[in-house]
Amino acid sequence: MSESLKAATIWFTGLPSSGKSTLAVLLENELKKRGRTVEVLDGDVVRTNLSKGLGFSKEDRDTNIKRIGFVCHLLSRNGTFAVSAAISPYKEIRDDVRDMIGDFVEIFVDCPLDECIKRDVKGLYKKAIAGEIQGFTGISDPYEPPTDAELIVKTGEEEPQESLRKILARLEELGYLAKNGVAETSEAEMASA
Amino acid sequence: MSESLKAATIWFTGLPSSGKSTLAVLLENELKKRGRTVEVLDGDVVRTNLSKGLGFSKEDRDTNIKRIGFVCHLLSRNGTFAVSAAISPYKEIRDDVRDMIGDFVEIFVDCPLDECIKRDVKGLYKKAIAGEIQGFTGISDPYEPPTDAELIVKTGEEEPQESLRKILARLEELGYLAKNGVAETSEAEMASA
Repeated sequence: MSESLKAATIWFTGLPSSGKSTLAVLLENELKKRGRTVEVLDGDVVRTNLSKGLGFSKEDRDTNIKRIGFVCHLLSRNGTFAVSAAISPYKEIRDDVRDMIGDFVEIFVDCPLDECIKRDVKGLYKKAIAGEIQGFTGISDPYEPPTDAELIVKTGEEEPQESLRKILARLEELGYLAKNGVAETSEAEMASA
Repeated sequence: MSESLKAATIWFTGLPSSGKSTLAVLLENELKKRGRTVEVLDGDVVRTNLSKGLGFSKEDRDTNIKRIGFVCHLLSRNGTFAVSAAISPYKEIRDDVRDMIGDFVEIFVDCPLDECIKRDVKGLYKKAIAGEIQGFTGISDPYEPPTDAELIVKTGEEEPQESLRKILARLEELGYLAKNGVAETSEAEMASA
């Protein structure tokens, strides 16, 4: 259907509990509905299958991100959307991954720290604030926001479906998705009809 | 063209210098010629991008193979042929990977140890025999040949092109490639003509 369109790596970045995984799953479902192939590389999947043994030091985090980037690259250059939902706190490494991949769409999941702490999906902020977890992004470890993201979604203010609509619109704009879910060829056919 | 055909993970296994990488590259080129997407996961690529820090203990080798298997799985279930050219000496782990992937074609690259030592592509057998490298497969570390491979190629006796022909024939037989490089739909059209 949309075979003529290139795929891309969709790279969510943001604080823990900012909404990356939620958006990754919504996006995955929508891409499948549109007949595209897609894989989500989420934190747990990655830590189990790619990065067992790695910790949360800067070096280990960087290795983890580079590894996810490598796998995303293999997928998206062969026509499958790769969606990363890792925190990926360091700008330099995200930029390395961007350079390697080329078809790279960085989405900053911008949610205020207070709101992330309020959500605290896995109860980890609580432990981090109590000092039970060291090196926790946003509390005891830095997060460097993107300066050149393809899109910023304000998940503290907008509903997930609204963020999803913005993401799809941006992917259409960038040429990775056909407009309104209609394949390019069909549009051409309609225009000539 | 061949869009209706499923992809598979092609898993070469065999001693060092048995000819796995040579066949992987020949197969890659042929698959591309036939309009299919393909990625080769060769030892060096993997050690750099997926498994930095892992050594050659049984545990580390197993982790390495599982990781390659995970990436092959992501690729081949989305329509891209994944070709692994790792030694993968242990049967149990190869079987785990087979179970995970499903569309798994194991090819035993069967070359006598003497012949592998004679070739010694990277000069590693020499070092292993001299005791300068520990845990070297075939010399100081075990290699467990497959008992249920989809194909055995005798690279000590046959030319690479002959092995390649056998591999392509087997992939056609298993339904992953159209016969003689002709897409299935075209064959159907020809039959009805």
